[in-house]
Amino acid sequence: MKRKFFPSRAGKAGLPPGSMVYVGEKELAEPLITVFDYTASDYREIIAESVEETFQFRDTLASTWINISRISEAGAVERIGNYFRIHPLTLEDILTQGQRPKIEDLEDYLFIILNMLSYDANNGGIREEQVSIVLGGNWLITFQEIEGDVFNAVRDRIRTGKGRIRKDGVDYLAYSLIDAVVDNYFIVMERLGEQLANIEVELMNNPGRDILHRIHTLRQQMLLLRRSVWPLREVVSRLSRNESELINDQTGIYFRDVYDHVIQVIDSAETYREMLSGILDTYLSSVSNRLNEIIRVLTIISTIFIPLTFISGVYGMNFRYMPELDVWWGYPAVWCVMVLIALLMIAYFRRKRWL
Amino acid sequence: MKRKFFPSRAGKAGLPPGSMVYVGEKELAEPLITVFDYTASDYREIIAESVEETFQFRDTLASTWINISRISEAGAVERIGNYFRIHPLTLEDILTQGQRPKIEDLEDYLFIILNMLSYDANNGGIREEQVSIVLGGNWLITFQEIEGDVFNAVRDRIRTGKGRIRKDGVDYLAYSLIDAVVDNYFIVMERLGEQLANIEVELMNNPGRDILHRIHTLRQQMLLLRRSVWPLREVVSRLSRNESELINDQTGIYFRDVYDHVIQVIDSAETYREMLSGILDTYLSSVSNRLNEIIRVLTIISTIFIPLTFISGVYGMNFRYMPELDVWWGYPAVWCVMVLIALLMIAYFRRKRWL
Amino acid sequence: MKRKFFPSRAGKAGLPPGSMVYVGEKELAEPLITVFDYTASDYREIIAESVEETFQFRDTLASTWINISRISEAGAVERIGNYFRIHPLTLEDILTQGQRPKIEDLEDYLFIILNMLSYDANNGGIREEQVSIVLGGNWLITFQEIEGDVFNAVRDRIRTGKGRIRKDGVDYLAYSLIDAVVDNYFIVMERLGEQLANIEVELMNNPGRDILHRIHTLRQQMLLLRRSVWPLREVVSRLSRNESELINDQTGIYFRDVYDHVIQVIDSAETYREMLSGILDTYLSSVSNRLNEIIRVLTIISTIFIPLTFISGVYGMNFRYMPELDVWWGYPAVWCVMVLIALLMIAYFRRKRWL
Amino acid sequence: MKRKFFPSRAGKAGLPPGSMVYVGEKELAEPLITVFDYTASDYREIIAESVEETFQFRDTLASTWINISRISEAGAVERIGNYFRIHPLTLEDILTQGQRPKIEDLEDYLFIILNMLSYDANNGGIREEQVSIVLGGNWLITFQEIEGDVFNAVRDRIRTGKGRIRKDGVDYLAYSLIDAVVDNYFIVMERLGEQLANIEVELMNNPGRDILHRIHTLRQQMLLLRRSVWPLREVVSRLSRNESELINDQTGIYFRDVYDHVIQVIDSAETYREMLSGILDTYLSSVSNRLNEIIRVLTIISTIFIPLTFISGVYGMNFRYMPELDVWWGYPAVWCVMVLIALLMIAYFRRKRWL
Amino acid sequence: MKRKFFPSRAGKAGLPPGSMVYVGEKELAEPLITVFDYTASDYREIIAESVEETFQFRDTLASTWINISRISEAGAVERIGNYFRIHPLTLEDILTQGQRPKIEDLEDYLFIILNMLSYDANNGGIREEQVSIVLGGNWLITFQEIEGDVFNAVRDRIRTGKGRIRKDGVDYLAYSLIDAVVDNYFIVMERLGEQLANIEVELMNNPGRDILHRIHTLRQQMLLLRRSVWPLREVVSRLSRNESELINDQTGIYFRDVYDHVIQVIDSAETYREMLSGILDTYLSSVSNRLNEIIRVLTIISTIFIPLTFISGVYGMNFRYMPELDVWWGYPAVWCVMVLIALLMIAYFRRKRWL
Repeated sequence: MKRKFFPSRAGKAGLPPGSMVYVGEKELAEPLITVFDYTASDYREIIAESVEETFQFRDTLASTWINISRISEAGAVERIGNYFRIHPLTLEDILTQGQRPKIEDLEDYLFIILNMLSYDANNGGIREEQVSIVLGGNWLITFQEIEGDVFNAVRDRIRTGKGRIRKDGVDYLAYSLIDAVVDNYFIVMERLGEQLANIEVELMNNPGRDILHRIHTLRQQMLLLRRSVWPLREVVSRLSRNESELINDQTGIYFRDVYDHVIQVIDSAETYREMLSGILDTYLSSVSNRLNEIIRVLTIISTIFIPLTFISGVYGMNFRYMPELDVWWGYPAVWCVMVLIALLMIAYFRRKRWL
Repeated sequence: MKRKFFPSRAGKAGLPPGSMVYVGEKELAEPLITVFDYTASDYREIIAESVEETFQFRDTLASTWINISRISEAGAVERIGNYFRIHPLTLEDILTQGQRPKIEDLEDYLFIILNMLSYDANNGGIREEQVSIVLGGNWLITFQEIEGDVFNAVRDRIRTGKGRIRKDGVDYLAYSLIDAVVDNYFIVMERLGEQLANIEVELMNNPGRDILHRIHTLRQQMLLLRRSVWPLREVVSRLSRNESELINDQTGIYFRDVYDHVIQVIDSAETYREMLSGILDTYLSSVSNRLNEIIRVLTIISTIFIPLTFISGVYGMNFRYMPELDVWWGYPAVWCVMVLIALLMIAYFRRKRWL
Repeated sequence: MKRKFFPSRAGKAGLPPGSMVYVGEKELAEPLITVFDYTASDYREIIAESVEETFQFRDTLASTWINISRISEAGAVERIGNYFRIHPLTLEDILTQGQRPKIEDLEDYLFIILNMLSYDANNGGIREEQVSIVLGGNWLITFQEIEGDVFNAVRDRIRTGKGRIRKDGVDYLAYSLIDAVVDNYFIVMERLGEQLANIEVELMNNPGRDILHRIHTLRQQMLLLRRSVWPLREVVSRLSRNESELINDQTGIYFRDVYDHVIQVIDSAETYREMLSGILDTYLSSVSNRLNEIIRVLTIISTIFIPLTFISGVYGMNFRYMPELDVWWGYPAVWCVMVLIALLMIAYFRRKRWL
Repeated sequence: MKRKFFPSRAGKAGLPPGSMVYVGEKELAEPLITVFDYTASDYREIIAESVEETFQFRDTLASTWINISRISEAGAVERIGNYFRIHPLTLEDILTQGQRPKIEDLEDYLFIILNMLSYDANNGGIREEQVSIVLGGNWLITFQEIEGDVFNAVRDRIRTGKGRIRKDGVDYLAYSLIDAVVDNYFIVMERLGEQLANIEVELMNNPGRDILHRIHTLRQQMLLLRRSVWPLREVVSRLSRNESELINDQTGIYFRDVYDHVIQVIDSAETYREMLSGILDTYLSSVSNRLNEIIRVLTIISTIFIPLTFISGVYGMNFRYMPELDVWWGYPAVWCVMVLIALLMIAYFRRKRWL
Repeated sequence: MKRKFFPSRAGKAGLPPGSMVYVGEKELAEPLITVFDYTASDYREIIAESVEETFQFRDTLASTWINISRISEAGAVERIGNYFRIHPLTLEDILTQGQRPKIEDLEDYLFIILNMLSYDANNGGIREEQVSIVLGGNWLITFQEIEGDVFNAVRDRIRTGKGRIRKDGVDYLAYSLIDAVVDNYFIVMERLGEQLANIEVELMNNPGRDILHRIHTLRQQMLLLRRSVWPLREVVSRLSRNESELINDQTGIYFRDVYDHVIQVIDSAETYREMLSGILDTYLSSVSNRLNEIIRVLTIISTIFIPLTFISGVYGMNFRYMPELDVWWGYPAVWCVMVLIALLMIAYFRRKRWL
């Protein structure tokens, strides 16, 4: 997990608040702007060339969803922000990647920051991306760092008009987007759960050398997940408590449903954490046990043979006068003594239950 | 414990909310529908062929309990849900197995999710099953994944009319069902408690090889139990606080009684957890101690004999001019020296209290 | 501590609530019923043959204390319960041993469950007994599993009329009984504290083999104590907050005093716990240190003599052509080499600070 | 730390509440009673022979501070208590040493218990002494177990009239006394901090044998400190919230200042605790590391020489027909083989990075 | 980290509250006083020779910022404090270095204490400095122990009139200063994060000897950071809740922004802590594993060769009658036996998976 947890804000220290500077990994691509303008009966879908093209939709009666991907150009964000009367501090937050999920009620609009997580099958790691949602009266703007495909299902539902999405306002759209993000968390959880199960099975059989490394990596990923999902709970909780006028009463029950999902993710994450900690304990204990067994074998072999070797050494000495050497029963007698000693040792080990 | 903690929701990601898809382990069997329609003086018991047969009971004055087992067919749940005016999100929750216990007040009805736990004597594991209860004005519907026998005692009480069950409304029935589920927790706790006691006794005597594995398994089972029982506390607490109009004031005291039982289960679970953690600590310490003792024996034997063996080796050398070898007292003198060294070593070990 | 933490409720699963079945260790003895009926000026003390004898005292103006020991016969409890209008759920709680301390306000009476702890000097363990108190307007009934002597001091105070006990009502009597139970906790704490101090002293000197076992036992006893005393805090706190009409305002200050005592017990228990955990850490570290020292000695002796033994082995070989063997200075030269190697080794160990 | 944490209350079990019995270490000395009676312009200082001498000051208009040291005689406390209308339960608390800091508002007076800590330079331990403060309308009585010198600075300020102490009432005096006690905590903290720093420095250099013992002792002292200072926080917090009429609004800011000091002590204590825990972890790890290194050296020496010794043993055998022994290159060839084996071993260890 | 955590207050014990004594590391330098007096259209910047020069700005209509560095001279602080009617307890806090961040509302002014942290590139440690802010109606005084450059960016913004700083009042200035301090925390966090990443990478490759020392140091630095940042949260939270009249409603949103930053720092600090703890666990486990492997090699070599050496010792004995020695197949037979034993041993180790 060679991930930089916290993008550098150091370059910004000293700038006045609300400074429009992109803080993140710079990409050179142009921003990609898509607009959905829809009513219960109809919808339009546009790929805008510049942010200015989207301005016409602000004051239409239809619901408007503007999605801006690849936001590394600060100017575009600033221009659309000014037109839609978004506070400079909000724009600064949108441009600063690596933030904590939060919700802010600025009366004219709700500002929501989420972390979208996705499992990277290539290296088994988790990718994190910041999604900012600005929810106005009948328009909603989303800002994404890179272009993802999590929102495609929502786009399809607008296109086909399936479900309530076109009938309800942009608050239901906001719900749909957040729900799509949270649904993605379940996929990530599942992958982590599979890794956990694999580690547990391997632990019981024959733990390889890299199991410690894998436990460590999984643990750090859990930490990352927790960091995203705990503040999300507060965000969705406030949405479901229906405090803002921008959210309809009927939409409340949907946010409560998302809230349940978030709680379930948290619950699973905590359970995984404890299971992982249990696995680590068990692993360490089994390492100890193994060490114990190895040392026991060493001790048994050593303590049996060391005295015997000493005896054989004694009768290997070259003193001229060693009476034992000359009697005919010397050699068998020594053998008897040595076998006796070995048997006594073995009996001692048995009594100690080392054998 | 080869259990999948969290059933896959990945297949559902992207579907609109309220989609009627069964999420769980598919079974092919038909749903089993039983209906109890009872008053203080009388009762009817029906096994319905289809969900439509149950519709007639919605508007009777008698209390009605509809129990649906093997709910893997989404269509039946959807049809009965529509007739009894249950919100699509509720139906979705009923169909999605592996949820967290929760309670929702949707004004027309109360929706309760429980986890029924049962101890599987075959493999010593815990089985978990989701039970959903929808409590309306004078009807109550329960949804179970598989057909269990926990509710049989309640059925018998309805049949015999023993106790208050036929006299009171369906809120008392809801209490009876939840009480039956919680009573089952005590049985599971007891089995875990016995396992714990066995492990503790074995630990004090002669811990076998698999004790670590058993501690690990018991710990994961405790985790599973906690996951079910902690949110249950919140559920029963809200029921006992009597907030809904669907629950009579007189039934409140019964829910408080269940609440006490849940607290007691939680309390015991926490105590077990701490005991288990104490057992693990003690086990690890005793492993350490054992290792210590083994190494001490090895050290004593080795350090006594290694110098002696060296001496015997010296006089086993074949140098032509070794004056000690030729004197008559050489051999006994060497013996004396060796015994002396051994005694000094033993005295040293005694002073160090290793012997 | 061969104690069953949680008496089996499994036998009761499925019975309707309020079933009168004794759950505990069955004893065959008859219940022992004692009655105190007292006013400021006078008192009567009766040993009743049957529960029916006590019924006459319910409606007297004097304060009445009925104490029932050995409550294993469910019928007697049920009959007195019915006469004094005690709710079946309360009676069920009284009969079910091993419950959590709790308080319930049922308007007509207060129902209090306590755990009385006593230190068993024979096996150094803690005995736990459930005491149930039902506090009515001017009568108070206590239920005990076995007959103890903790309440004797209270009985003596009623007999002698010392203090306020006869002047105040049964709420003051309830206070006196709870105070007696809590005072007993101090005695248990003190015994545990002595054990803790003994272990600590022994740890600093020469820890015996069984110290680990004793630490473990003490820890489990602490757990048991906590289980009893934490919920007690809530019980006494509610009593001292004076919410019920059954408790006089003047008695409130006395309950606050008991509350302080309970807090002090909890505080000490937590401190003991942390001390015990510190002792365990220190013990484990000292075991590690000891192991270290033993291995150091083994290493020093082995690494000095192993090369020397090798050298002596070389010149013990029987090759025909070994020029060193035939020169007159061969033997002293080998000795010099061996002494030199030993000195170098010792110097190396000194530099490493192993010697 | 051969301290008895909790003085025995066992002797009191069974006595009615409010019994006047001294619980602590009995001393035979007479109580020492000093009285300060002061106004803004004047003051009197008296050493009273008996408690009765102090009674005259109760109803004077001047502020009166009565300090009673060596309170082991219960009678004197009881007499002064009765005259100043102090509740028997309060007197019982004053006489029972080893209590938890607390504050009680009994309308006529405020009752405060503090633990005064002092660092005992002789044995490096912490001494604990209970100070009870009874704050009436214009009188204040302090009870101390032994005679300390912490309050001397306050006495001097009364004598010289420096600061506001003589201008304000006894609530300001109470503040001054509590402030003096808390200031003393800083001194204790500093000594503990120095010990901690010494241990940390020693740990990095060459940890001696007793470092484990010293860490253990410091930890237990921290525990003791926490026990005193956490409840103190609640006490001072309530004083600074200005709830009692006995405390002037202007004095509130001073209590808030003390509150800040208490928070700072708690904060430091928690930081020390975590540092100590980090030191213990580091110590244990360094012990592990050391063990590792010792065993590595042992292993290297042993595994190099054991095979060599075996070879030399083989050619030390006395078989008649051993062709290697008779060829002239036998001896140098064996040497070559042995050197080769040693080099291979060393190469292996290098690859494993053990060398 | 040879830092004294808590500057000695011992020298102050016994002094009356509000005593003007500097508690910190005395420096001999003169205090450095700079004044900014600004309106939206204009500004003056003065370096004052003495505190008295600043008095003229108190009653101007323009916003005034007085910054006093090197405050080791108590007299200057006292004189300016008296003129601006600052409470003696506040002045005492300003002069006492090493305090906990806090905020106090004294009606006429807000008093804020912050800890400015800076990363010392020379020794890789964190430097901590106390900054006190006194916020009056249209003046603001900052007190710093030493002269830093964190506020230079704010000074430049006043000089250039960029942003809102000259248009808004001193509450916005207070925000700017606190924001500058918090922005500095991000720089410190980043440095710690880099250290953490370095340690983690090194851990996975080849941990050096000093890694334990570095983990320990980083841990203690985290502790230091936490101590500063947790209370800061409370401070900024209270500022953002807009309770004081000295803070405009429009400035509230800016303080909420700082609050978010503080939360983010805390969040990162907690994550770092857990990661560090995970790293330590993994390090310890890998040390264990290494030990295991070393001992395994030792055991394999020893247990193979010890019996062989014994056999060779047996036939090295000098008994006269040893029939095996005289037969011609004796020597090859012994070799066969020894090879056989070695192979059996290796097979045993393979079965045990030690090889």
